[in-house]
Amino acid sequence: MGPHPAVAAIRLAVRRVLHEILDDVLTDHTPARPDPARSAIAPADTAYEQSPPPLVLVACSGGADSMALASALAFEAPKLGIRAGGITVDHGLQPGSGLRAAEVVVRLTELGLDPAESIGVSVGREGGPEAAARDARYAALDAAAERHGAAAVLLGHTRDDQAETVLLGLARGSGIRSLSGMAAVSGGPGAARRYRRPFLHLDRQTARRACMVQSLPVWDDPHNSDPAYTRSRLRQEGLPALEKALGKGVVEALARTAQLARDDADALDAWARQAEASVRDAAGLLECAKLYALPPAVRRRILRRAAIEAGAPAGSLFARHIEEIDRLITGWRGQGAINLPGKVVARRQGGRLVIRQG
Amino acid sequence: MGPHPAVAAIRLAVRRVLHEILDDVLTDHTPARPDPARSAIAPADTAYEQSPPPLVLVACSGGADSMALASALAFEAPKLGIRAGGITVDHGLQPGSGLRAAEVVVRLTELGLDPAESIGVSVGREGGPEAAARDARYAALDAAAERHGAAAVLLGHTRDDQAETVLLGLARGSGIRSLSGMAAVSGGPGAARRYRRPFLHLDRQTARRACMVQSLPVWDDPHNSDPAYTRSRLRQEGLPALEKALGKGVVEALARTAQLARDDADALDAWARQAEASVRDAAGLLECAKLYALPPAVRRRILRRAAIEAGAPAGSLFARHIEEIDRLITGWRGQGAINLPGKVVARRQGGRLVIRQG
Repeated sequence: MGPHPAVAAIRLAVRRVLHEILDDVLTDHTPARPDPARSAIAPADTAYEQSPPPLVLVACSGGADSMALASALAFEAPKLGIRAGGITVDHGLQPGSGLRAAEVVVRLTELGLDPAESIGVSVGREGGPEAAARDARYAALDAAAERHGAAAVLLGHTRDDQAETVLLGLARGSGIRSLSGMAAVSGGPGAARRYRRPFLHLDRQTARRACMVQSLPVWDDPHNSDPAYTRSRLRQEGLPALEKALGKGVVEALARTAQLARDDADALDAWARQAEASVRDAAGLLECAKLYALPPAVRRRILRRAAIEAGAPAGSLFARHIEEIDRLITGWRGQGAINLPGKVVARRQGGRLVIRQG
Repeated sequence: MGPHPAVAAIRLAVRRVLHEILDDVLTDHTPARPDPARSAIAPADTAYEQSPPPLVLVACSGGADSMALASALAFEAPKLGIRAGGITVDHGLQPGSGLRAAEVVVRLTELGLDPAESIGVSVGREGGPEAAARDARYAALDAAAERHGAAAVLLGHTRDDQAETVLLGLARGSGIRSLSGMAAVSGGPGAARRYRRPFLHLDRQTARRACMVQSLPVWDDPHNSDPAYTRSRLRQEGLPALEKALGKGVVEALARTAQLARDDADALDAWARQAEASVRDAAGLLECAKLYALPPAVRRRILRRAAIEAGAPAGSLFARHIEEIDRLITGWRGQGAINLPGKVVARRQGGRLVIRQG
């Protein structure tokens, strides 16, 4: 008799990602050969003779999603010759958080994870409470990954988290990049593929069930249902109401939208990067006539990049700013300079667009 | 003292669109000249000497949005030498709908619209009740526009309708084209720019207020609050809950997303059309190696077009179908033919993709 379907599902998801991590490790560690294609097909054990077994860490809050992830990592890693460790971050935001973090470490240790450690962080205020906590958490995880020489850090975000992230992006109304949610693979400083999200296509219910049938105690973070947080309101009320109106498939549809939007945004960014070179004159200035001939979607991306390059902070640059710069090209009637965030000014001069600070 | 701000807003929105329509009419009707740029700057009255004043129709349900639109058209059209008419469509779906349609005609006539007429349609069942009613309505409007030789038909969709349409598209999870909502300008048979939506950036509240201050009686369609309809559930519960969770700016953010997604989708479609020629071999077959080198977003659009060209109905072709074809290219391990809707089959043969019916 095999494991419970929920347990099988979380293990399969983790196994797939561990294979990807091994492929990456192999490609990085195998010495260069005349035929680079060979390294990708070399058997794993050949490569391991040359380097210690790789370490994969799981970031674990003690909640159902990350406890399920930790249990699946503990089960799958040894079979692939991978060392498994776990990190829990103590944000120090709730009374007793230190004790709770210590409990999570005990559970990770019981699962066989080594290292299993708690890291205390101090959460700032920049960007609001949720963003500040996230920044502190990732900084701690980055540091832990560096210190232990980890090949990757697994994160327990599920399809439900992804759906919430898409809706949060939608609320910004700043285009398809903000609809693309979280990536299955993303980077940290000096490690372009550090973070992996094996559960991005799995629903929260499956993770919860996997914990239950494995008798893993889980902790429900009161923040997750605190209406002071936008994401909690979305989870508790917004998304259920949307499901009631639109049907049960909404979460899956939002997650699929994220993937499609990410691919679309990547393709358009690549196009804009390529097109940018062709619309600059010998002095490097943007030529309005050539910009005019581009599709609006590509032109606006070039304008956005130019504004950021000139010093406008990306987070303060909204669609309406880009619209206004765009009108210097598509609706030119001699209008004056446009003030952008970060003291950046955009103006049209002699058929050229001049965007610079001051 | 000028008009109430709500009335000023609806009139401005209509005036802008009427100017666009005049530009189009002028471009179409003015005889060809050596310098085509001149026709666009010819004064309006010059062109009118050669043709009767253009007619613009408003589609009016009797609800607040379209009554406001009718009132603004009646006010603005004469000032621009445009004739204004109104059409109300009687779907025959509710008892007394014929009487109501007759009332709307009376109101349109009182506003000075001529022609003002009611058209009865019979609503089929294809695609569900909402789609069937919409199809019947547009067929009737197309026919009326042809019969009266109308230059354009104005539709009363507001920013709120747009937000609902984006959410409905989101629930399909089929990518950014379905997030792009309704276009400000769209076509009917033989008329690429027949339909105009002057209120797409105006909120429903403004239209309602404009009716109130002009003492225009409006009719609240019970369908709009009938929870049997997806759109009503969204309007009554889904969107308010989302606003409660994410803040009041959600409707505006959704409408802005629609515009950005539309531009992005247009650009990517153009790229795919262009790229398609370069990935076909001499016999016109799609070469897998060349497809592989394209960004996923572009490749999938080419695959979708190819499947539709081969006879797969666009409406039944989902993201997962395209995913499966895509794996013939990105995850080739000798898999068999893939069955698509419309009895279309996709297979890989000798490095080529063969997509055809039967």
